[in-house]
Amino acid sequence: MTALTRRTMLAGSAAAAAAFTPFASMMPAGAAAPVTGTQAASWYRYKVGSIEITVVTDGLNQFPLPADFVSNMKKEDVQAGLAAAYMDKEIFFNPYNPIVINTGSKLVLVDTGVGETAFISSKGKIGQNQTNLLAAGFDPKAFDAIIVSHYHGDHINGLIKADASIAFPNAEILVPAVEHNFWMNDGEMSRAPKGRMETNFKNVRRVFNADVMKRVRTYEWNKDVIPGVTAVGTPGHSTGHTSFIVASGADKVYVQSDVTHVPFLFVRNPGWHAFYDQDPLAAEATRRKVLDMVANERMMVQGFHFPFPSRAYVEKNGMNYREVIASWNPSI
Amino acid sequence: MTALTRRTMLAGSAAAAAAFTPFASMMPAGAAAPVTGTQAASWYRYKVGSIEITVVTDGLNQFPLPADFVSNMKKEDVQAGLAAAYMDKEIFFNPYNPIVINTGSKLVLVDTGVGETAFISSKGKIGQNQTNLLAAGFDPKAFDAIIVSHYHGDHINGLIKADASIAFPNAEILVPAVEHNFWMNDGEMSRAPKGRMETNFKNVRRVFNADVMKRVRTYEWNKDVIPGVTAVGTPGHSTGHTSFIVASGADKVYVQSDVTHVPFLFVRNPGWHAFYDQDPLAAEATRRKVLDMVANERMMVQGFHFPFPSRAYVEKNGMNYREVIASWNPSI
Repeated sequence: MTALTRRTMLAGSAAAAAAFTPFASMMPAGAAAPVTGTQAASWYRYKVGSIEITVVTDGLNQFPLPADFVSNMKKEDVQAGLAAAYMDKEIFFNPYNPIVINTGSKLVLVDTGVGETAFISSKGKIGQNQTNLLAAGFDPKAFDAIIVSHYHGDHINGLIKADASIAFPNAEILVPAVEHNFWMNDGEMSRAPKGRMETNFKNVRRVFNADVMKRVRTYEWNKDVIPGVTAVGTPGHSTGHTSFIVASGADKVYVQSDVTHVPFLFVRNPGWHAFYDQDPLAAEATRRKVLDMVANERMMVQGFHFPFPSRAYVEKNGMNYREVIASWNPSI
Repeated sequence: MTALTRRTMLAGSAAAAAAFTPFASMMPAGAAAPVTGTQAASWYRYKVGSIEITVVTDGLNQFPLPADFVSNMKKEDVQAGLAAAYMDKEIFFNPYNPIVINTGSKLVLVDTGVGETAFISSKGKIGQNQTNLLAAGFDPKAFDAIIVSHYHGDHINGLIKADASIAFPNAEILVPAVEHNFWMNDGEMSRAPKGRMETNFKNVRRVFNADVMKRVRTYEWNKDVIPGVTAVGTPGHSTGHTSFIVASGADKVYVQSDVTHVPFLFVRNPGWHAFYDQDPLAAEATRRKVLDMVANERMMVQGFHFPFPSRAYVEKNGMNYREVIASWNPSI
């Protein structure tokens, strides 16, 4: 058996689980069947030309809907939006979905999720990215690079483990120059309002510790970050917020990062200002421009906060838009 | 370690795969990363009250769109419908999704997929149900019953293996009385038109061999098939076609079987007659009645031919309807 064949086989968690499941230990027919409570390891793989993308979820964060979640709308309007999408009106549903891009010559992860500390404190509800990477066949040591879209905690905290050591020990950390310069500027930090922005600055400085900083390399907008992956400036959500176009042959996908938060609220209502948006008007302008482009080009969108596996098309709906969830293929 | 704990752990394919993956054999960082080509074992688990449902895909059948796929529409209209849903206009996308229902006292499978013969001939594209059941932690020997919705091949062929032996050796086979009486009636068989109906009759008689027949028990509409699962007559697609309401506490889901085929065509256009419908007008009347009910009650629908994990809500859209794909929860 060649190393490649062996790796390919082991990468299939179905095959691995089937091979090692001792049926003799399972319940006999007719016995009361205990409910298991376990979910499938949530990863999903697809091709963009010759590039392989694997969506590897970091989990789902659910919390009571904050009154000011959308700053320019009343809570009741947001609740009506949730109800229209058949979501719980009292709970905010916030999934995190990093992706692995394998170009055949480079293995990279785009954004990291919330990391090991959150995995422990949430009892595995969030911070699942590392365990799901293993389930999908990816050794953290194998990554050549981590591409960071922007510096909010759900995108960067997984760069380090609970003990502050580097989570991907052989990877370069590729960051948007505009974003890096903003958060590393002491003047900006000193002027940050109390609350969310001050907390974010402190978190960035915590995550980008000396070991992480040694591996950082900045990238520029409108250039390839790695061959096949182009950085697109989409500021507003944060100063240097970045999206990506992954392209191979005639095929491409728009990795929108946080241009819109959950699609069932913010693709449908691009004028709504989520409290995560640092510059709400700039974020809205970016959102409308990107949604118009992907709708016109009928381009598939991969969204960090879209429900797993976080792939959708965007159709026009009057002055607004609507997400059309892409169909799952169980064989690639 | 108790048997339950052991079983629970093994049921998680992620845990099993992670535990048995020898990272030393994987590629070092910086080496060319081979694309793997493998997909996640496609199963998904959720709760309905205290009942646990696991969607366990049988795979996706893709084939060139037949000209007469919708008997009362032109091929161009069907292609326009596919394009509106961002699907390939030349390929028909036909997923098969059996479900496991675990009530805590009974472990049952609803429909079986196309079986081992098709798994072999399709090289694993379809007939995946048995391998995915293993990945999800289910021993075929552990099933108390198989509930059959109707007698088309994609729902019954998995009752037997390629050698015609029973696939679920300890399970009763619970079948709708109306459906069973139709297909087992020699007069009906002798009057069947050549083509699809004649082929279906022959297939039913092949699958329901002597060993299978020993395990068959018929169930009636408007009664519980097992506690928590009520049979609902939804004829038209076939004479005795059956749907199910799974209910526990205040929670319920409508298991629609083939009331509509793929939602992106037939939820959106309930007046379209797929060539699978044996009595197209009766099937349409059933479809409109069911869609109206689940839309009014905002009830989640589980559909055999909905894209995996095949869970959707149905909203009204003028005289028609539209599916709203239910969001994935990576932690149950």
